[in-house]
Amino acid sequence: MRQEIGVAVVGTGFMGKAHALAYRAVPNVFPNSLKPRLVAVADVTEAGARQAAEQFGFERVTDDWRSLLDDPNVEVVSITTPCSMHREMALAAIAARKHVHCEKPIAPSASDAYEMMKAAEAANVVTQVGYNYIKNPILKLAQEMIASGELGEITSFRGIHAEDYMADPEIPHGWRVDPQNGAGALAEIGNHIVGMSRFLLGPITQVNAQLETVNKTRPVAPGSPERREVKVDDIARLMVTFERGCSGSLEANWAATGRKMQLEFEVYGTKGALFFSQERFNELQYFKVGDDPRTSGFARIEAGPAHPPYENFTVAGGHQLGFNDLKTIEMAEFLAAIEHRTPTFPDFREAWEIQQVVDAAIRSSTEGQRIRL
Amino acid sequence: MRQEIGVAVVGTGFMGKAHALAYRAVPNVFPNSLKPRLVAVADVTEAGARQAAEQFGFERVTDDWRSLLDDPNVEVVSITTPCSMHREMALAAIAARKHVHCEKPIAPSASDAYEMMKAAEAANVVTQVGYNYIKNPILKLAQEMIASGELGEITSFRGIHAEDYMADPEIPHGWRVDPQNGAGALAEIGNHIVGMSRFLLGPITQVNAQLETVNKTRPVAPGSPERREVKVDDIARLMVTFERGCSGSLEANWAATGRKMQLEFEVYGTKGALFFSQERFNELQYFKVGDDPRTSGFARIEAGPAHPPYENFTVAGGHQLGFNDLKTIEMAEFLAAIEHRTPTFPDFREAWEIQQVVDAAIRSSTEGQRIRL
Amino acid sequence: MRQEIGVAVVGTGFMGKAHALAYRAVPNVFPNSLKPRLVAVADVTEAGARQAAEQFGFERVTDDWRSLLDDPNVEVVSITTPCSMHREMALAAIAARKHVHCEKPIAPSASDAYEMMKAAEAANVVTQVGYNYIKNPILKLAQEMIASGELGEITSFRGIHAEDYMADPEIPHGWRVDPQNGAGALAEIGNHIVGMSRFLLGPITQVNAQLETVNKTRPVAPGSPERREVKVDDIARLMVTFERGCSGSLEANWAATGRKMQLEFEVYGTKGALFFSQERFNELQYFKVGDDPRTSGFARIEAGPAHPPYENFTVAGGHQLGFNDLKTIEMAEFLAAIEHRTPTFPDFREAWEIQQVVDAAIRSSTEGQRIRL
Amino acid sequence: MRQEIGVAVVGTGFMGKAHALAYRAVPNVFPNSLKPRLVAVADVTEAGARQAAEQFGFERVTDDWRSLLDDPNVEVVSITTPCSMHREMALAAIAARKHVHCEKPIAPSASDAYEMMKAAEAANVVTQVGYNYIKNPILKLAQEMIASGELGEITSFRGIHAEDYMADPEIPHGWRVDPQNGAGALAEIGNHIVGMSRFLLGPITQVNAQLETVNKTRPVAPGSPERREVKVDDIARLMVTFERGCSGSLEANWAATGRKMQLEFEVYGTKGALFFSQERFNELQYFKVGDDPRTSGFARIEAGPAHPPYENFTVAGGHQLGFNDLKTIEMAEFLAAIEHRTPTFPDFREAWEIQQVVDAAIRSSTEGQRIRL
Repeated sequence: MRQEIGVAVVGTGFMGKAHALAYRAVPNVFPNSLKPRLVAVADVTEAGARQAAEQFGFERVTDDWRSLLDDPNVEVVSITTPCSMHREMALAAIAARKHVHCEKPIAPSASDAYEMMKAAEAANVVTQVGYNYIKNPILKLAQEMIASGELGEITSFRGIHAEDYMADPEIPHGWRVDPQNGAGALAEIGNHIVGMSRFLLGPITQVNAQLETVNKTRPVAPGSPERREVKVDDIARLMVTFERGCSGSLEANWAATGRKMQLEFEVYGTKGALFFSQERFNELQYFKVGDDPRTSGFARIEAGPAHPPYENFTVAGGHQLGFNDLKTIEMAEFLAAIEHRTPTFPDFREAWEIQQVVDAAIRSSTEGQRIRL
Repeated sequence: MRQEIGVAVVGTGFMGKAHALAYRAVPNVFPNSLKPRLVAVADVTEAGARQAAEQFGFERVTDDWRSLLDDPNVEVVSITTPCSMHREMALAAIAARKHVHCEKPIAPSASDAYEMMKAAEAANVVTQVGYNYIKNPILKLAQEMIASGELGEITSFRGIHAEDYMADPEIPHGWRVDPQNGAGALAEIGNHIVGMSRFLLGPITQVNAQLETVNKTRPVAPGSPERREVKVDDIARLMVTFERGCSGSLEANWAATGRKMQLEFEVYGTKGALFFSQERFNELQYFKVGDDPRTSGFARIEAGPAHPPYENFTVAGGHQLGFNDLKTIEMAEFLAAIEHRTPTFPDFREAWEIQQVVDAAIRSSTEGQRIRL
Repeated sequence: MRQEIGVAVVGTGFMGKAHALAYRAVPNVFPNSLKPRLVAVADVTEAGARQAAEQFGFERVTDDWRSLLDDPNVEVVSITTPCSMHREMALAAIAARKHVHCEKPIAPSASDAYEMMKAAEAANVVTQVGYNYIKNPILKLAQEMIASGELGEITSFRGIHAEDYMADPEIPHGWRVDPQNGAGALAEIGNHIVGMSRFLLGPITQVNAQLETVNKTRPVAPGSPERREVKVDDIARLMVTFERGCSGSLEANWAATGRKMQLEFEVYGTKGALFFSQERFNELQYFKVGDDPRTSGFARIEAGPAHPPYENFTVAGGHQLGFNDLKTIEMAEFLAAIEHRTPTFPDFREAWEIQQVVDAAIRSSTEGQRIRL
Repeated sequence: MRQEIGVAVVGTGFMGKAHALAYRAVPNVFPNSLKPRLVAVADVTEAGARQAAEQFGFERVTDDWRSLLDDPNVEVVSITTPCSMHREMALAAIAARKHVHCEKPIAPSASDAYEMMKAAEAANVVTQVGYNYIKNPILKLAQEMIASGELGEITSFRGIHAEDYMADPEIPHGWRVDPQNGAGALAEIGNHIVGMSRFLLGPITQVNAQLETVNKTRPVAPGSPERREVKVDDIARLMVTFERGCSGSLEANWAATGRKMQLEFEVYGTKGALFFSQERFNELQYFKVGDDPRTSGFARIEAGPAHPPYENFTVAGGHQLGFNDLKTIEMAEFLAAIEHRTPTFPDFREAWEIQQVVDAAIRSSTEGQRIRL
């Protein structure tokens, strides 16, 4: 009989559901994993929590997230609420010696993230932050090819995260553009490509950035003639230097008309190059230096059993993982770190590092100069 | 509290696991669905069944699948064993008034499929056959565009299912090439494209086919110098006529070097055309007649909330479903049909129809003439 | 000073212009080639011929193509008129001991083509037929990879030529659907893919085909209410066997909504596979068996200096050839064959072979049986 | 009889040949154009010039380019020599009242370009600079869609020109890395994407750039152990602001492993978006806001007769232009500007503007601050 671990989820929106789905899937996909017991779910209203409990099978519900912390059955807390609430919740959970999974961005500022990270490390609890896209088996391959030297010396990186969900200027002013929520294209989606670049290439030591607000005002409510000024960026462009010596560019854009998930990068090395796009995330394009020019070119690698843990989902190549599967891998790795006391990635420390890049970019843009981290 | 339904799964291989995963996921993804209770799992060995039970949470295990039929808690039986066992198992399950999900191909011949279909209809049980790929929300869109006349009069269809898993002539002779198992490229994967073409365009009334065995012998065991003749096809090519008046071509090929999942089609109508490939199954290419030639072309539609039930998995576009998600949709539809006594697709009747096309193709190839169905 | 060769072009339409452009380009692109001297151009009207002469620099014009044959300065005749006139013109040109380039299809029937071929061979003149697409450097690569065994034993071929220029049922009945002109999708564009398959894989020995007329009537004139029956195919599907032992499928379709140039093939061998589409004809996709499954996939080879005679056009990779460049290569090869008395491809014999496949397909479709060539 | 215009070409390398080919093609492709008479060709050696004359049909040759300027038959001078010689040659040609086509980059610095531009404008001669890629009919479409407001308000631009021809650190130190030649990735290929962004969106008013030398030394000769420091950039990244109000990023990279012609951009507007890559330059991807989300997506527009002057090359869609065809369009436009005294683009003024962006980027990188133009 497998060992269980008690989990509570706070929040039942987009990510709350994704967490619940993932916890449910983990034991079926990863037979050696701890088995999450869905002890409790918290939401602003008890009705909301009850609906989630019914759907996902949580044992009890609450509209008071603090009540979860006293529950000895709750060993893990997943925080999926708006960013402005992360700090308070995480610190309380850590104080109660719970392991904490927190959605990204971990906090609206690096200083908040730092406090959270310090608390977690002091309490020796395991933390994880929801940078789900890098849990992709084909990106693990990319990361290994870079780490092993298979691509040679890395010379350049180009990263993008562009979507169009905030392109329409009539989308009302709300939490998405509230700086308290770690808002702005850079903080909300740009941190994915910041995180991905760090996952692949390591620390960033210098940032030169320009942030821009395309939709300078938004209606206070849908259809309202009254408009409020937007103080966060729609577009952020960064030129960065990595500690390893190479440099690159990063772009965040949530007003990128027509793009639903242009999270992509191209990385060049002296022995090879990779291109990846989340639009086709079961593929990785690979150019290998030294092949016969007559027959060489970028090869389209398709995710398959050669790319762990793909095979946990399906034994046959060409079948493809979906977004929720990435979340399942993320949770399985988190639980494995709890069980075996191994490092997890990205933890609060990593999220703090990512947030420092975000903060430095904002400062660089405002001050009009390059910032060293 | 949601109503439960007792499920037993027979077989614990590739598809046995996919069924278990899907049954587990259904209640979490489809909150209005019946909730499968994993009552039992059967495997050739009790150890195999026990491992699956541990992984997926089945309540009990058995190495005697017949014992499931006496269990009043078992309302649904999922048959995922090799094809040669489907008929016996399905007939027994039907006789015990169980609803039956059976993997494809349903049977090695249309006559077996006919017997199974007749028994199911007489017993008034709900049946489903595992043509999972057509459960894709973007293919539901394709099917609707054709059915609604959005593509105009359909003039032509081109379908392929090509993979390379049997390309290597040193893969031993085994169940995959045993005609008793509904083997051969056409019967094993070609039925997917036959089924997909029927799903999109309706009945096929004429077949002109040529089947071919590329690897004419295979070793009796891995590395063995002794070889046995292969009697099933590696490649099948069909020219078909649809009842609606148009014609098309179909190809099955399991020796298609380099291809992992080239399940694709292109369909032309007087008002538009579609191209789909399972290699990028969250996309559908659409050309619309009448748009300005200066700016028109095939548009790459990305699966999103506009394509039910995509939104059950994730509320945001661009996130993508994986293979196991298609299986989850399949199971949810099966359970909905049981609950509401609505028709399901593809049921045993549809599988029999598909098998008739397969049988006709084999006959056409042998006799060297076109066969009317 | 380079040696000149006198050329006359008959016809000034789409292909007449393409020939003139190509003859003009040859000496500039191929410095070792004979230099075409544009002696004369013939058209139905002298005015038409004069316009072409003005544009391309022909020395004289005529509305009587026969007058070209008496001109000792004319050594080569390019025939770009409708197919129904090819036989008469080619036989006359051959009788006058001219080398002949004739556009495809060479003739409305294999018997006509045979007569033309026999006459040319008896007269020992050099002939060429305008299968321009196979003059692509990247297809020369494909052909060499197959011929050299780099792809191993070829197991299967799938070829298509689909466009949409006859999809509209209101396009009037005219020469395009007149069987005297070698009309029909198969004869007009299908012969490209027949020719390409022969170029790559060699002779076809068996055909099983079905031809179909989608637009069964067409107006006798634009907008006319009177309609005339169409007797040629809009779609042709062929299952073929190659002399080398493998088989394949071919499709011609000129009612393929949305497609402008879907001339494509996929060929599978035991050591590799290729995919090509004329839609992106400066690329060839190549899968190589035996590469590490972790990093292998179809590689996108881009045409470049490694693929002669690409470099004659531009020394840098990635610059790409256009359609007219293919025609220039074709003419350069034709002129080289004349100069050095080397074989050319495809000559009248090859065109006759292609036409035999077309004729066999029509017969197969009518008789409902496989035809051996 | 068409009017002729006398042309001399200086230089017979890559671009010298491209000019000669284009001048030769113009009258055949553009029947209303002036007809270039290839009066003379100059090269460093008379032998080199003679070879070009033989190939392209120049009437006379010289190893003294100055001698061309006294020739009254020479009305147009094409300068295709290394960049360091452009200024002297162009000023002399202008002084001799010749119209001047000069390859890009026009000069190693904006101040040289300014002098050249001023001289040309004072002399009232027509000038053109070889930014050939923007002569693409499909980019004319892109430019028109932006200019007409079809894409709405433009919100963002992302441009790249990446190739790999200088990736290998063993390529010797030579003219390519000599600052006197306008060398460096930015100056040599980056100016293409600078020019393309200006062509599409208009003037750039601010630049924030970082240039980087990846290969810091190169051998003084092939295989030599002695190495010399490289003082120009391998990679340049720019963040730019356009006068129209939007901003964007530009990247130049000639060490981009595997890339042969990644000259690409994505431009977002409030009503639509475009994606273009020179790797597939007969295509333009277009997303139109407001289409039904169920069936909308980026449409792949294929170049065709709807995109002038495509039809001058071939009347049928899907046939595609090649690189040399772009050069032919460029020359035809240049000659039309001479004939009709209409503005041409990009002329010396435009090249000076482009060079100012390049110079500003270098200064921004060195000074570590944003530069206003």
